[in-house]
Amino acid sequence: MADLQSVLDDVAREAIEATDRGAVANYIPELAKVDPGRFGIAVALPDGQVHCAGDAQMAFSIQSVSKVFTLTMALGKHGDNMWSRVGREPSGNPFNSIVQLEQEQGRPRNPFINAGAIAVADLILSGHQPREAIGEILRFIRDLADDGSITIDERVARSETAHGDRNASLAHFMKSFGCIDHPVDHVLGVYFHQCAIAMSCRQLARAGLYLAGEGRDPASGAQVITSQRARRINAIMLMCGHYDGSGEFAYRVGLPGKSGVGGGILAIAPGKASIAAWSPGLDAAGNSKLGSTALEHLTRRMGWSVFGS
Amino acid sequence: MADLQSVLDDVAREAIEATDRGAVANYIPELAKVDPGRFGIAVALPDGQVHCAGDAQMAFSIQSVSKVFTLTMALGKHGDNMWSRVGREPSGNPFNSIVQLEQEQGRPRNPFINAGAIAVADLILSGHQPREAIGEILRFIRDLADDGSITIDERVARSETAHGDRNASLAHFMKSFGCIDHPVDHVLGVYFHQCAIAMSCRQLARAGLYLAGEGRDPASGAQVITSQRARRINAIMLMCGHYDGSGEFAYRVGLPGKSGVGGGILAIAPGKASIAAWSPGLDAAGNSKLGSTALEHLTRRMGWSVFGS
Amino acid sequence: MADLQSVLDDVAREAIEATDRGAVANYIPELAKVDPGRFGIAVALPDGQVHCAGDAQMAFSIQSVSKVFTLTMALGKHGDNMWSRVGREPSGNPFNSIVQLEQEQGRPRNPFINAGAIAVADLILSGHQPREAIGEILRFIRDLADDGSITIDERVARSETAHGDRNASLAHFMKSFGCIDHPVDHVLGVYFHQCAIAMSCRQLARAGLYLAGEGRDPASGAQVITSQRARRINAIMLMCGHYDGSGEFAYRVGLPGKSGVGGGILAIAPGKASIAAWSPGLDAAGNSKLGSTALEHLTRRMGWSVFGS
Amino acid sequence: MADLQSVLDDVAREAIEATDRGAVANYIPELAKVDPGRFGIAVALPDGQVHCAGDAQMAFSIQSVSKVFTLTMALGKHGDNMWSRVGREPSGNPFNSIVQLEQEQGRPRNPFINAGAIAVADLILSGHQPREAIGEILRFIRDLADDGSITIDERVARSETAHGDRNASLAHFMKSFGCIDHPVDHVLGVYFHQCAIAMSCRQLARAGLYLAGEGRDPASGAQVITSQRARRINAIMLMCGHYDGSGEFAYRVGLPGKSGVGGGILAIAPGKASIAAWSPGLDAAGNSKLGSTALEHLTRRMGWSVFGS
Repeated sequence: MADLQSVLDDVAREAIEATDRGAVANYIPELAKVDPGRFGIAVALPDGQVHCAGDAQMAFSIQSVSKVFTLTMALGKHGDNMWSRVGREPSGNPFNSIVQLEQEQGRPRNPFINAGAIAVADLILSGHQPREAIGEILRFIRDLADDGSITIDERVARSETAHGDRNASLAHFMKSFGCIDHPVDHVLGVYFHQCAIAMSCRQLARAGLYLAGEGRDPASGAQVITSQRARRINAIMLMCGHYDGSGEFAYRVGLPGKSGVGGGILAIAPGKASIAAWSPGLDAAGNSKLGSTALEHLTRRMGWSVFGS
Repeated sequence: MADLQSVLDDVAREAIEATDRGAVANYIPELAKVDPGRFGIAVALPDGQVHCAGDAQMAFSIQSVSKVFTLTMALGKHGDNMWSRVGREPSGNPFNSIVQLEQEQGRPRNPFINAGAIAVADLILSGHQPREAIGEILRFIRDLADDGSITIDERVARSETAHGDRNASLAHFMKSFGCIDHPVDHVLGVYFHQCAIAMSCRQLARAGLYLAGEGRDPASGAQVITSQRARRINAIMLMCGHYDGSGEFAYRVGLPGKSGVGGGILAIAPGKASIAAWSPGLDAAGNSKLGSTALEHLTRRMGWSVFGS
Repeated sequence: MADLQSVLDDVAREAIEATDRGAVANYIPELAKVDPGRFGIAVALPDGQVHCAGDAQMAFSIQSVSKVFTLTMALGKHGDNMWSRVGREPSGNPFNSIVQLEQEQGRPRNPFINAGAIAVADLILSGHQPREAIGEILRFIRDLADDGSITIDERVARSETAHGDRNASLAHFMKSFGCIDHPVDHVLGVYFHQCAIAMSCRQLARAGLYLAGEGRDPASGAQVITSQRARRINAIMLMCGHYDGSGEFAYRVGLPGKSGVGGGILAIAPGKASIAAWSPGLDAAGNSKLGSTALEHLTRRMGWSVFGS
Repeated sequence: MADLQSVLDDVAREAIEATDRGAVANYIPELAKVDPGRFGIAVALPDGQVHCAGDAQMAFSIQSVSKVFTLTMALGKHGDNMWSRVGREPSGNPFNSIVQLEQEQGRPRNPFINAGAIAVADLILSGHQPREAIGEILRFIRDLADDGSITIDERVARSETAHGDRNASLAHFMKSFGCIDHPVDHVLGVYFHQCAIAMSCRQLARAGLYLAGEGRDPASGAQVITSQRARRINAIMLMCGHYDGSGEFAYRVGLPGKSGVGGGILAIAPGKASIAAWSPGLDAAGNSKLGSTALEHLTRRMGWSVFGS
């Protein structure tokens, strides 16, 4: 096996020199301001050690990567009952598609497309005001990352709200089928704030470590979730974590992963590592272009693919 | 780790006693004749040893499991050029759906839905007569299984042809977009015959061993395919091997797998085992009901999930 | 030609005696309260005379029949420019479907499906506050009906708003594609109020007379719209006025018509008559069951089909 | 009312001078050979007189215009029972789309899209060999046109067969749902031959006269079909006769009409005229570009729109 730090340094160097960097998300103005030249990567190991390269300490908007953590929370709150509200199959469609939602009567295909994550936000709200639910999500992530300094970028949250018509459409659609319990603006309030959480690669890799460790945070020793649930979240990440680019990510990288339009990706090598990569430029499916490439190279050199070393 | 043989015996006992066995495929008369009470399972280990339980020596129609072997052959013949003809994303649709094919101009989503496998059969035909291509497929599988007695069930092949309108529709559709090179009846001839190959669980598990062993047949030592390609075929199996039940299989079993409507499933635990299970009754998505359950139990007890032990 | 009044009396008698009356719309509670036993019909002739039978003087919620009048207004305000925002083809889909809207980038197929009518409401808003636009619509209809007593049923309007998630979803969806200019709640405010206008068959038939008379109100002599536009609105009514039941209405009745889920239908026999029928029970496509049957019988006996007498 | 012959002369002159003529169909090589500069128009009046302009005596491939005649025959043979096999709603989709066919279990939306016309060909076959059914169609059209010289262009029929994969796909698809009774190659044989019938505008206008005359051939006095069925065929022509351009044709022309990819259109002004226009260049929806424009001008000047004079 190659030396991890030198692999990370190589990967970061390649990424920084790359000329074809994809396009920074522009669906909300705040995200469009990010410097496309950035690249960071971090690997958290089972012993809690974190190796970094590039801009790994710089916070970015985690966006849909947050869906991994809210899915974990919803499973904790509602157990397998939650699957009556949301499926766990790949959708074969873009992240914000509404077509399948009409065919399937308001039940989203999986918790990682936007509609599914909005349904999960609704589940997290149960018995709470939006502010409380948002606080709970933030605390959960801070605990996982062992870092109380993580915050929500309020400008991003406001920008999401101001340009959130597509997500509002999905939420009202599910509401019309009775698949959402709380008022649409409450649910969207939670969803837009979870997407606006800002984290660095270092923090994100650290926060994902429980998924690499059978549901147990190896540093603190806390059992965040059962080992079976950890495996299952990993399965859903692999199948659905990159929208209609999930097959491509599995083919090239071979790890469970979840991307966000902020350019971040959290990937899990079960038993071996939790990895966060970040580069703001996206490919056509809305996944970080250089982030995917970096993870492909890292996985190959470290022999971490779940499909064979 | 549990003792493999006793786990297999337990799993087989449970399956044989099960009352809810799913429904035997009836889309072709020959398949509908199979005894729904059958169940077999076999595990081939990297050293070439094969452990069995139940009806593991009884031949059944491998149907779509054959798509794993023809994909391997097409990659060998055409390399990555083949991906211009077929994608590698989950479809989110049933195995015989034509909707996506219209939206995507005749290019199937992946090689494991029917349309994709028909496109792969067309690739295998190149430079051949149908009879030669069929012979080549059969020889390839006999070599992998190290068993020259494997044959094609001609009654099944004829029954497929006589009731093959849905597949003929898919083939003519692709042909109309120029996505198939050979005459439709040649391509379907190959496809219907590959589906009619009859194998036992023991033979099937043995034949899949190269996918558990980095592309190398560990018994013979032959490098069937590069290690990268073996990983990639495993990735496609996990993402797409069970049609619109692929997410469910990943969630419950956690292994790359490919099912057939004859009730067989080939599953790969990379580095650990090649597994074949068979029970003719199918679930709503067309995958073996007891076969899936058996693999779920086996994987859990052996700690073989790719998503964490 | 049969005697009109005796035909109307026959048709009303049949309708009142009918046992299979369809199902009253229940998607908003206020509409569900209507007595399913009601039936009214009125025919306005080019000379301004109105013949009635049954409950023709009883006001009901005109719902989507209002879309004929707002389309007329939008054509007056924006001319053919409005067709950049909305098409004029049958959708082949239910009235509230969002599937096509995604495929066609937020541009509704025609002004009579919900999405299209919401886009038309947005056009009518231009330069107005919602209250002004609503007032303008109401005045337009009062003028056409020559009846200042027509009002908006505020309980229905509130009920629409409270249960308007499906329409809110459509509006936000179009907004996300930039196909709506005004705030979604303004647009929906106009739309929900136009749907809540209450009219009797007598008033409705009178209001539609300009469409039977080459765009000219034959009683007042006012040219409401050019003759070409009147023909074109009739064309759109025939093609799209009954959602995915438009073909059936054309086949059975043979007149341009527009239905509403309140159970009303406005039908136009060009050069001959403007007809309003009302019965609250709906068929599977959301069109008045007995209203359609009554129009079928009336048209056949009067020889009014546009497809041959 | 304008003088018919001088209107026809004007319309033909405009068409012959037009520079933007659309694109000649190239999906089969034989059709692509036609001179794009051609234009013909003919109007048959209730007294049997036919007025012509341009290339009205030149035979062209009627293609899908033949669907009007086979629908008439199938209604004669099977009556309203035929509607269990095919619907009568606009599809909202292109002429050769298969998407809806999957959603609706192999039952085509209407008899004028390709799938629907293939289902109608299957109905006409009942009790016949393909050769007999083709002969019967040809005789029916010769009788209607009162012209025994009409023939099938065998080169076109062969070209259709050689390039008929899309239609073969539709036919096999319906067969797989049990919606076609006869062997697919028999059904396609009939369908490809009916499309290859060659007629001039003069012959076509004459053949359609029964639809303008309440089902009665006014020249011969024969009642081809009941008046109700004639109205209903007109209704289906208006709703569905131009595929996903049907709304546009109704909006601009305002007559029931049926187009073919050979560039012909048959349009019916009920009680007034049967009209045939021909120009080989097609618009994006596959309908004759100059043919539509000519019909728009003719209808406006003659005051023949069914939506108001």
